Amino acid sequence: MSNIIYFDNFATTSLNEEIFNEMKKFLIFNYSNPSSLYEFSQKSRVAIEKSRENISNYINAEKNELFFTSGGTEADNWALMGLTLFKGRKNGHIILTAFEHSAIIETAKFLENRGFDVTFINPNKEGFIDKKDIVDAIREDTILVSVMYVNNEVGTIQDIKTICSFVKEKNSNIVFHTDAVQALSELEIDVKDLNVDLLSISGHKVHAPKGIGALYIKTGTDIENFIFGGSQERSRRAGTENVAGIVGFSKAIDILRIKREENVSKRFALRNYFLKKIKENFENYKINGSIENRSSGNINISFLGIDKEMLIMSMDFKGICISGGSACSSGSVENSHVLTAMDIDEELKNSAIRISFGENNTFGEIDEFIIALKEIIS
Amino acid sequence: MSNIIYFDNFATTSLNEEIFNEMKKFLIFNYSNPSSLYEFSQKSRVAIEKSRENISNYINAEKNELFFTSGGTEADNWALMGLTLFKGRKNGHIILTAFEHSAIIETAKFLENRGFDVTFINPNKEGFIDKKDIVDAIREDTILVSVMYVNNEVGTIQDIKTICSFVKEKNSNIVFHTDAVQALSELEIDVKDLNVDLLSISGHKVHAPKGIGALYIKTGTDIENFIFGGSQERSRRAGTENVAGIVGFSKAIDILRIKREENVSKRFALRNYFLKKIKENFENYKINGSIENRSSGNINISFLGIDKEMLIMSMDFKGICISGGSACSSGSVENSHVLTAMDIDEELKNSAIRISFGENNTFGEIDEFIIALKEIIS
Repeated sequence: MSNIIYFDNFATTSLNEEIFNEMKKFLIFNYSNPSSLYEFSQKSRVAIEKSRENISNYINAEKNELFFTSGGTEADNWALMGLTLFKGRKNGHIILTAFEHSAIIETAKFLENRGFDVTFINPNKEGFIDKKDIVDAIREDTILVSVMYVNNEVGTIQDIKTICSFVKEKNSNIVFHTDAVQALSELEIDVKDLNVDLLSISGHKVHAPKGIGALYIKTGTDIENFIFGGSQERSRRAGTENVAGIVGFSKAIDILRIKREENVSKRFALRNYFLKKIKENFENYKINGSIENRSSGNINISFLGIDKEMLIMSMDFKGICISGGSACSSGSVENSHVLTAMDIDEELKNSAIRISFGENNTFGEIDEFIIALKEIIS
Repeated sequence: MSNIIYFDNFATTSLNEEIFNEMKKFLIFNYSNPSSLYEFSQKSRVAIEKSRENISNYINAEKNELFFTSGGTEADNWALMGLTLFKGRKNGHIILTAFEHSAIIETAKFLENRGFDVTFINPNKEGFIDKKDIVDAIREDTILVSVMYVNNEVGTIQDIKTICSFVKEKNSNIVFHTDAVQALSELEIDVKDLNVDLLSISGHKVHAPKGIGALYIKTGTDIENFIFGGSQERSRRAGTENVAGIVGFSKAIDILRIKREENVSKRFALRNYFLKKIKENFENYKINGSIENRSSGNINISFLGIDKEMLIMSMDFKGICISGGSACSSGSVENSHVLTAMDIDEELKNSAIRISFGENNTFGEIDEFIIALKEIIS
């Protein structure tokens, strides 16, 4: 798709060619079921276990603490369901931030209907959670606290290590989960240093394919299995493994290991250039959320008086892909629960667009965007 | 893998090249998130909806009755969990056959621990379920009856239409599910004619990739959603879609539509040749399960006094892939719950191997197998 400008890398990323070639080996040649007994099958099984070791190593987890899922959403569902309904619990208390990904929010709402209490903690206008608000919400029956690492709409980074330590200090029995799906391309993740119990990641945000993710489960965490059946994933998540997805995910991690810092620098440079150009050319705009402690590629910006849906469509007409927040499949731009949680003014919300740069974007593409934006706004 | 003889097509199948090329389009070129608003994203979304239409059409379902999952195991889990624990039910009764796939058995065992009653109906020695046994087991609180279409170890085909009609006649409120994962390559599936409420299928048994499946949900079936989050799959199964897997699955269905009958004939011919050669060369053997009403590619056979694990390993040494039943990931051959349910003698069970031909196998490969078997047995 060389004729489009893709500024929506928070929605998904292009598949890296190197990753594709690795996947091809397991799609075309080593197509065996990893659970069979013969040598042909061992090749897939070894590939899965090497991938598990590689990915767990990258986040400083033990190999036996990483479980592959069909994506970040399934990992998030597992975290919440595995501690509550699946455990046979009839009630209990969950604390979330109000700007979690819908995979967390909607699962929690479902659990509310099944007898669980959920407290939603609002971030401030800058997009940060006050650890005091989390700690104050803790009750005797609190089972789980879930705080996302990098927000998928405004890109703000929470201080998970500190929040987690405060939660554990108040009640060490509480399980702490973080949705790190949007953090994986940006931050060095060290689960031991963070001291979280559960952490979700996904492949397709880091140039691996869609349909593969993982849940980190710290040894000793009392969480129920999620999908029942065969003894795949040490009997914790059944189903014939998506071998190609798993090796693709692992290859993406190999690349991240080498390129992450460089990629972050590139995206910072792109964003700085973008902000400079915006400042030079426009007046009535507002960046939503803090620009500090924010994922390098992310901008959430409102051009006052410009309806976001109109802007997205007009940009699309010019071959530029931007977003109105998170990807939603309704085909229309819903009101952002993230900006609502941040108490952003209605007018700003109605014009808020998300631009997310990838390391492969160019300054020239930003120039084209600026020209397009001038045309649309005038 | 041209140097191996692959006789384990019930475990998984090779990826068809045509399918791979279709997947490649959505891995490399149209990598967009299907839920975004711009045109680039519409290409993935349209591809998903065309795939849904194609696959649902193939099984005579409506387009809005087919929901993509990460595989057959997830579809089976959804069927059972979606009617029980997820519905907020605290108890109730489930009827299964005792030789269901582990995705059904293990989920049911989990539900037993959560307050549900499960009745397991044994098949006869030939591998068939007596509909009377099912009907007799129905109670006032029976929620669900699940009967697999084609058994994954012995290949016997149940008369789902008749069994379902008897169940519905006794209590029309009971939801009827069939695991048709192993049936898809073999039978013409017509959900309206079968009159089932739920039906599970999977891609990797029909030359599509691992990690994609679907659950058919008849309109009006009162089943809870399974994975919560974004509004993918009409808000019934959240998570960014495995687009490449979905289009690959659809392409596999295109091929099945044209080739299924021919493939079945080819596999019958292979099996007949195999049985003829076995008869000519060996004496102490027994076919497990009926040879009538059995999936064309499947043989489950015991060579008396020959330990199955030894035989599988010896065949592997000669580059021939066979199985000891269903694929299990423990690295050892477990005792088959299928043959146990069929009340097969211990000695036969200990030597039972599964051979499953694909349409691409050859008579020459069978000749090689016979030579290898003679060497191993002597």
